Amino acid sequence: MKTTISEVSKHVGKEVKIGVWLANKRSSGKIQFLQLRDGTGFIQGVIVKSEVSEEAWNQAKELTQESSFYVTGTVREDHRSPSGYELTVTDLSIIQIAQDYPITPKEHGTEFLMDHRHLWLRSNRQHAILRIRNEIIRATYQFFNDNGFIKIDPPILTGSSAEGTTDLFHTKYFDRDAYLSQSGQLYMEAAAMAFGKVFSFGPTFRAEKSKTRRHLIEFWMIEPEMAFTDHEESLEIQEQYVTFIVQSVLKNCQLELKALDRDTSKLEKIQAPFPRITYDEAIELLKEKGFDDIEWGEDFGAPHETAIAESFDKPVFITHYPTSIKAFYMKPDPNREEVVLCADLIAPEGYGEIIGGSQRIDDLELLEKRYEEHKLTDPAYEWYLELRKYGSVPHSGFGLGLERTVAWISGTEHVRETIPFPRLLNRIYP
Amino acid sequence: MKTTISEVSKHVGKEVKIGVWLANKRSSGKIQFLQLRDGTGFIQGVIVKSEVSEEAWNQAKELTQESSFYVTGTVREDHRSPSGYELTVTDLSIIQIAQDYPITPKEHGTEFLMDHRHLWLRSNRQHAILRIRNEIIRATYQFFNDNGFIKIDPPILTGSSAEGTTDLFHTKYFDRDAYLSQSGQLYMEAAAMAFGKVFSFGPTFRAEKSKTRRHLIEFWMIEPEMAFTDHEESLEIQEQYVTFIVQSVLKNCQLELKALDRDTSKLEKIQAPFPRITYDEAIELLKEKGFDDIEWGEDFGAPHETAIAESFDKPVFITHYPTSIKAFYMKPDPNREEVVLCADLIAPEGYGEIIGGSQRIDDLELLEKRYEEHKLTDPAYEWYLELRKYGSVPHSGFGLGLERTVAWISGTEHVRETIPFPRLLNRIYP
Ligand SMILES: [Mg+2]
Ligand SMILES: [Mg+2]
Repeated sequence: MKTTISEVSKHVGKEVKIGVWLANKRSSGKIQFLQLRDGTGFIQGVIVKSEVSEEAWNQAKELTQESSFYVTGTVREDHRSPSGYELTVTDLSIIQIAQDYPITPKEHGTEFLMDHRHLWLRSNRQHAILRIRNEIIRATYQFFNDNGFIKIDPPILTGSSAEGTTDLFHTKYFDRDAYLSQSGQLYMEAAAMAFGKVFSFGPTFRAEKSKTRRHLIEFWMIEPEMAFTDHEESLEIQEQYVTFIVQSVLKNCQLELKALDRDTSKLEKIQAPFPRITYDEAIELLKEKGFDDIEWGEDFGAPHETAIAESFDKPVFITHYPTSIKAFYMKPDPNREEVVLCADLIAPEGYGEIIGGSQRIDDLELLEKRYEEHKLTDPAYEWYLELRKYGSVPHSGFGLGLERTVAWISGTEHVRETIPFPRLLNRIYP
Repeated sequence: MKTTISEVSKHVGKEVKIGVWLANKRSSGKIQFLQLRDGTGFIQGVIVKSEVSEEAWNQAKELTQESSFYVTGTVREDHRSPSGYELTVTDLSIIQIAQDYPITPKEHGTEFLMDHRHLWLRSNRQHAILRIRNEIIRATYQFFNDNGFIKIDPPILTGSSAEGTTDLFHTKYFDRDAYLSQSGQLYMEAAAMAFGKVFSFGPTFRAEKSKTRRHLIEFWMIEPEMAFTDHEESLEIQEQYVTFIVQSVLKNCQLELKALDRDTSKLEKIQAPFPRITYDEAIELLKEKGFDDIEWGEDFGAPHETAIAESFDKPVFITHYPTSIKAFYMKPDPNREEVVLCADLIAPEGYGEIIGGSQRIDDLELLEKRYEEHKLTDPAYEWYLELRKYGSVPHSGFGLGLERTVAWISGTEHVRETIPFPRLLNRIYP
């Protein structure tokens, strides 16, 4: 019976055949313990000299790290094993003996591992992080599909960018100029007027010379946009969504969280509703905590976000930022024009901002005024104004950064490990 | 009770409030018939002068196409309506009266509609096509999640391209050169060695000067890759996957298929297994059909694919193409080196190729030989060779083009209507 490691629980006491690689091996004379992986999981294979053919025993002795082979064996329950199962090997058939696999069980430097990212993905820890990423992706589709959202793919190649071209990648688009999208939001607003509730999920690009543990040049974003939805209703969707993905990972990635030594008690507390403080209150909180490097009207840096988050054991919404430091399309608070109906969601444990969102300006005159203030003279944005001419409605949306969310939920220090092939300031290989 | 048009069936006989736009209107003196849309669907609202306040009646009279408002009314079943329901309007509250909406119910030229794509998305037909696209996306995640695949996102920005740089978009990546990905396949092979079964689903880019109804500059691809899987097993996954998405659309998009006048009897026939013919047989079939413009060793054009597809009422696999016209990484047939273990899947009804796939070369020496033949000297590809050094295994994969698949299933002539914001040779707006 051909199967996979993730399915062995269905075959207890039976003989199975699995295509595998050798992750590690130890031997005690007449028994060899093979740490096997097949991509779906890890399992120990035990081969006893007296119980197999001489050929099988000798083949097992030949196996080096990352050699590929088909293993045949009987599945046994074993409560000492992390997966709960073990394989009593009866036979094996080598596909390839790997020579000098570069990533040995010893410690390697980060640059070396990043140069071998195509192989590093096979290690237990990277495997666990990216399976959690996969579960967050799966849960995201489930959440938005179940809540009546339509997936809309905004374009990556655009004729210009609403937020300036400084941090944009440029390319020639035949005889014109084009830029790689930093956000699909403006397009998602057009889509919300056509489909009501929409979400995007795709790669975005920032040619920023940042070299922090929270920045990637190429990263994935989820950008929902909702017609007939105000700021307050949007916050409720956000906290329900974040709760859903955290609880899905807790439910479906127990082995992975264990492999990463993640403190799951911290994740269990992540249940909507989330605390909300205004920007004003956040500034006050920082003053109380002794920060003297920030004044009303300035944006928070990573240390500020971390300090604010420390006061909460759930993600915290910081709402009502000063209009002057936020994007041109955010709707001013009708009771207080100097702040906007927006919120950033700050993850606990120092993982920083994972969501930015706002209600959007729906008034044509005000948006035209903002175009002037921000010198958005490029005709590439005419269409965006038209959304306020033809049946404008109150609408809100937000963007969640996938990699920062994976880093937080998996407990990974640096975002470079939360995406299969990270693009960093100094790295575009492999 | 605030609700949406797609949910009215849950509120028959009750009063609901819905945020809507006016799609169309007709009046017969004392009754106005309002065609309403809210993004989730379309419904007719009937407002009778004698049964509402004078103010509500006058507000309804003011409504122009694409005006936005909240409508209150009682849900009634109505078997004459496409959705099965109608709304007896009791009150309404205008948000914005739209002036001179450019897309009127009269006919417009394609270029005009494409210039107004941000508004055109609101029309019944575009709405239906993109909801079918959404269902195909949803069903794709369901299929691969349910079959043990992990979603892996290959990078978009790469240091080089394995298949030549002619059709690639170039950008400066800080002080280096980078290109936009045409396919994530090579990366997916690395991922399959780490995770067993993987799939990608993201945008890809071809700077091709093609201007046919089947080409987009920016399009979305699904690229599954499977370790320990041969060509034959891969074909089975492909036909199961395509069957699953077609049957999902039939089940969940009945209103949309009706709005598009799609002949659903043709879709009902799409059930695995699919017919398979070899390239040799396809050449013979074309000769029989009178084609004298193709010889063994040449690739098929759109007219050839259409002619071959005419002989079948299901998608047809064309297998075993000549090695010389296929990609360098495809595994030769061990019994016949001049052809490779590959298949293209051709959709019925003239919609052309929707899948290309193959078993990959797993032998290091042969792959090195191919590198020489194809002059792949760029160090950017060293890592790909290493996959054959360290535990190489038989593996296969394929790529499905989303937009061509949407075109086929929805019965849409040109792929430009199957993506929200198409990028074409002469178009990067809106
Ligand atoms: Mg911030
Ligand atoms: Mg072809």
